[in-house]
Amino acid sequence: MTKSNPGHYFEDFKPGMELVHATPLTVSTGDLSLYRALTGSRHALYSAETFATTNGFDALPIDPLLAFHVVFGKTVPDISLNAVANLGYADGKFLKTVYPGDTLTAISDVIGVKENSNGKTGVVWVRTRGENQHGETVLSYVRWVMVHKKDPSSPAPDVSAPDLPEAVAASDLVAPSYRDWNSALAGSSWRYDDYQVGEKIDHVDGMTVEEAEHQTATRLYQNTAKVHFDAHAQAGSRFGKRLIYGGVVISIARALSFNGLESAAQMLAINAGTHAGPLFAGDTVYAWSEVLDKAELSDGTGALRLRLVATKNHPCSDFPLKGEDGKYHPDVLLDFDYWAAIPR
Amino acid sequence: MTKSNPGHYFEDFKPGMELVHATPLTVSTGDLSLYRALTGSRHALYSAETFATTNGFDALPIDPLLAFHVVFGKTVPDISLNAVANLGYADGKFLKTVYPGDTLTAISDVIGVKENSNGKTGVVWVRTRGENQHGETVLSYVRWVMVHKKDPSSPAPDVSAPDLPEAVAASDLVAPSYRDWNSALAGSSWRYDDYQVGEKIDHVDGMTVEEAEHQTATRLYQNTAKVHFDAHAQAGSRFGKRLIYGGVVISIARALSFNGLESAAQMLAINAGTHAGPLFAGDTVYAWSEVLDKAELSDGTGALRLRLVATKNHPCSDFPLKGEDGKYHPDVLLDFDYWAAIPR
Amino acid sequence: MTKSNPGHYFEDFKPGMELVHATPLTVSTGDLSLYRALTGSRHALYSAETFATTNGFDALPIDPLLAFHVVFGKTVPDISLNAVANLGYADGKFLKTVYPGDTLTAISDVIGVKENSNGKTGVVWVRTRGENQHGETVLSYVRWVMVHKKDPSSPAPDVSAPDLPEAVAASDLVAPSYRDWNSALAGSSWRYDDYQVGEKIDHVDGMTVEEAEHQTATRLYQNTAKVHFDAHAQAGSRFGKRLIYGGVVISIARALSFNGLESAAQMLAINAGTHAGPLFAGDTVYAWSEVLDKAELSDGTGALRLRLVATKNHPCSDFPLKGEDGKYHPDVLLDFDYWAAIPR
Repeated sequence: MTKSNPGHYFEDFKPGMELVHATPLTVSTGDLSLYRALTGSRHALYSAETFATTNGFDALPIDPLLAFHVVFGKTVPDISLNAVANLGYADGKFLKTVYPGDTLTAISDVIGVKENSNGKTGVVWVRTRGENQHGETVLSYVRWVMVHKKDPSSPAPDVSAPDLPEAVAASDLVAPSYRDWNSALAGSSWRYDDYQVGEKIDHVDGMTVEEAEHQTATRLYQNTAKVHFDAHAQAGSRFGKRLIYGGVVISIARALSFNGLESAAQMLAINAGTHAGPLFAGDTVYAWSEVLDKAELSDGTGALRLRLVATKNHPCSDFPLKGEDGKYHPDVLLDFDYWAAIPR
Repeated sequence: MTKSNPGHYFEDFKPGMELVHATPLTVSTGDLSLYRALTGSRHALYSAETFATTNGFDALPIDPLLAFHVVFGKTVPDISLNAVANLGYADGKFLKTVYPGDTLTAISDVIGVKENSNGKTGVVWVRTRGENQHGETVLSYVRWVMVHKKDPSSPAPDVSAPDLPEAVAASDLVAPSYRDWNSALAGSSWRYDDYQVGEKIDHVDGMTVEEAEHQTATRLYQNTAKVHFDAHAQAGSRFGKRLIYGGVVISIARALSFNGLESAAQMLAINAGTHAGPLFAGDTVYAWSEVLDKAELSDGTGALRLRLVATKNHPCSDFPLKGEDGKYHPDVLLDFDYWAAIPR
Repeated sequence: MTKSNPGHYFEDFKPGMELVHATPLTVSTGDLSLYRALTGSRHALYSAETFATTNGFDALPIDPLLAFHVVFGKTVPDISLNAVANLGYADGKFLKTVYPGDTLTAISDVIGVKENSNGKTGVVWVRTRGENQHGETVLSYVRWVMVHKKDPSSPAPDVSAPDLPEAVAASDLVAPSYRDWNSALAGSSWRYDDYQVGEKIDHVDGMTVEEAEHQTATRLYQNTAKVHFDAHAQAGSRFGKRLIYGGVVISIARALSFNGLESAAQMLAINAGTHAGPLFAGDTVYAWSEVLDKAELSDGTGALRLRLVATKNHPCSDFPLKGEDGKYHPDVLLDFDYWAAIPR
C-alpha cells in the first residue's frame, strides 16, 4: 500500500467531521522578514515594535494575512489536494494577535457537502480555525472547494450547505484601541473620517512576480499544492505552466494598497474573496480599492470595509472589475472583501 | 602578491593537517524560516516548538541538514575551491542538536591523500566536524574530493586512504527519545513497524528549482563555490550554465520525502552520498526512497536506513536508479544513504 | 482628491525643512539571514555572535550596509519618487552599532536646493539620519538627487548648496576596539600593515543577479522605487526592463570584496558613491578595490579608505575604471569610496 498521501475525495468529507491538520508551525521574526521581503508589506504596525507597542500590542505582531496563509497552507493536504477549484471564503475573523514565537495549528470542521449534478464532483464547506499554543483560536474562516469524487457511481450525500453571512458584522469585529497613532510614521494623515463609502483608490504601483518569489512565499506558508511548484507536470496542464497561489496575490495587492490606505493597517475580517483569474510568473500585479462600508468601533478606532481588486498587467486608474455581462474583466485576478481597522 | 584566496591544491594537503575554516556562523530563527521557504521542509519536529519540546528537545531545533550545509559551506574555500569533483561522503553523524543562537565553526582534518595515475590530480579525504560555541562537536563526516595539482611534476605523496564504514552502525546513532509523538500533527500514522526492509516509496510531488532559489540557499550556507553563482564564467564551461549545489538537491529531495516518510523526521547519520548528475535551474526534482535497513534504538524509537533517490524531470513511480550496465539512469541526480529516527 | 502618494517635486523642498519618513523598521535576525542569503556576505564579525562579542560588541550586530539600505529605503517615497537621478552620496558616518531588535526611523533635513538651467528639474541635497528606538543617531549621510519640477514656470529658489567633504576625516571615524581578532576564523591573516596605499585587489569571484533576488532584497529594505519592481511599466522605459537598486550592487560588490579584504569587515564611513551604469537581471557582478588611504585609529585598530569598483560581465583582473576621456568604462556599475576598520 502506498504511503504517500492520496488526499481526500468528495466521499470522504462528512458533515461534523473534524480534521486536525499536520505540521503546526512556530512563526518567528524570520517569517516577518521573509513576508516583508516577498510581499513588499510596509505598514508601520507590522514593521516597527515601537509603533506596535505604542498602539496597544505586546510586541511586534505577525501580519494577520501571514497567519491566515500559514493556517490555510496546512489545510491543503487534507482539503484541497484533489480540488478542482477553490470557490470562496466567508466569515473570516481575526480574533487574537499572533506574535513571533507563537505556534499555530490548523483544524477544520466539515460544515457542508453538496454533490454537483454531473455526479463527478461535489462542493465541500469547511470552517477552519488556527489555534495558538494555548489552545486559543486566533483566526477562523469558512472556505468551500469543489472536489473530485473518487467513484462517480457512489451515492450523493444529503445536501447540507451552511448559511454564510455576506460580511462579518461590524459588531463582531475584535477592535484594537490605538493609543498614539503617529501619522508621519504611518505614512499618511488620512484617517477614518477622510474615507467615504463609495470612494475608489488607485494604488498606482505595480509588482512583477517571479517564479522564485511565489514558490518561496508558498513554501514559507508550507502550502504544498502541486500546481504552484511542479513545472514538469504543469507543462501538460491547461495553462502549461505553474499557477501562482492566490494568497500570494492577496498579500501583494494588500501591500500595494499601502499607497492610499496607509493607516488601514490591521485586517480584522475577511468577508469574501474570489480568485477571478490566474496569475503567472512574469505578470505585474496592480490594485485598487473601494470603500464598501464604514463602522465606528470605539472612540479612537473605526473600521473600513474595503473591496481590494487586483489585476494583472493592467494599471488601475480605470478601476477595472466586471463587464456589462456581469463577468470579471479578464485582467482581474482578485476581488477581495475585508474589514480593516483605522484610527479616527 | 595577490590577496584573494587561491585555494589549496593537491600538494597542499598533508595527512594530519588541521584546517580551521573561516566564518563561524550563528544560526537563527531567520535561517529556519529561509530553510523552510527554500526547501519546502515541513516536518513537525523542525517546524513547531510545541512538537519539539513535547518530544524531548529544549526548543525548536535546527534541521540537521541545515547544520550540515552550513558546516560544509565553510569548508569550500579551503577544501574544494580547486576541486574537480566531489566524490563522496561517509560516516556522517549528527551528535548534538543545534538550536537557534548556536554558533557553528567548521574544522577539517586531512585523513588521506592519493595521487591519480594521470599525475594531474589527486584525491583528498578530510574529516570535517562542526563545533558549537561550547566546543562540542555537533556533527562530523568524511568527504573526499578530487583536487588539481598545482604542479604536475611535483612528486606523488605516500598513499594514505582511510578505512570507511559502508554505513554508520546503528549502535553509534545518537538516539532521541520521543515522549509524545502526535501522528495527526506529524502528518501520518505510519511508524517504525509499518515500514519493511526493501519497501520503496514514491514521494509523488515535484519541485522546480529557479536560479534565484538555489543561489539564495547556497549563500544562506555561505558556500561560495563559483560554479553556482557566476553565469558569465559558466557560459564558457562544459555545461554552459550555473550548476546547482548538491546540498540543494539533498534538501529538496528530503523535503519531498515528507510525503510517505512524515514521521522519519530526524536525520541521525549520513552513510553515503553520490551526486550522480547535475541539476540546472528550470529542472523539476522528484524523489523516491527505499528502506535499506531497520534498527530498534529504544522502547519508543527506531531508525530506518533509507536510500533517497532524486531525479530530474522524471516522476518516480518507476523508481529509477541504475541501468543493467550498473550506471546511474541519466535522470538520477542523487543517491543518498542515511539513517532517520522514527517513533515505534 | 487622490489618496495615493504623489511624492514631492522640486518646489516642495525648502532648505531647513525636516521630513520624518514613514515606516520605522525593527531589524531582526531574520533580516540578518536574508541579507546574508541575498548578498553572499560572510564577514565573521557579522556572521558569528562569538566573534562579535569577543571583539567588543554586545551581540551579533547588523551589517552597517544593511542599516544604511533600510534607512535609505524609507526616504524614497519622500525624496526620490519623482527623481530623475540619484546623483551622489557624501559624508556618511556609521555612529552606533545596530543590533537585532533595534527599531530604525529615518529623518531627512533638506540642506540645499539648486534649480537646473533647463528650468524643468533641480538638485536637492538632504542629510538623512537613522535613529534607533532611543533617539540615538546610528548613521547619517548626505545624498543629492535631481528632481522634477511640478511646474516649469515656478520661480527658481535661491541657490543653497552645502559644502561637502571629499571624504570623512579619519579623526571623525567612530573606531572599534577589537580585542581578540582570530585570523583563521576571519578568513585571512592580512591586517592593516599588509595593505599599501595604491594597492589594487581583484576580488576574482562573480555573482549573477536574478530578478527575484534584487526585488526581494529591495523589499527587505522597504525601498519602493517603482523602477525596480514594475516590469509592465518598465517595458515602456528607456531600458525596457527593471533596473536593479544601486544598494544591491553596493552590497554584492562589498560581499565579493571579502575575497582579499577579509578582515576589513566593518564599514565606518561612506565618503562618496557613483552609480556609473545600470545593472539588470542576468548580469554578473565582479569587483575590485583600491586602497586610497590608511589611518591608525588606536593601538589595535586601523582604517583603510577603499575604492570599491563593481563591474558587470567583466572580470576585474584589468581593474577597469575610467577611459582616457575621463568617462567611466561602460562595464563599470559603481565607484564607491568608504572607510573600513581593520585590526592592526
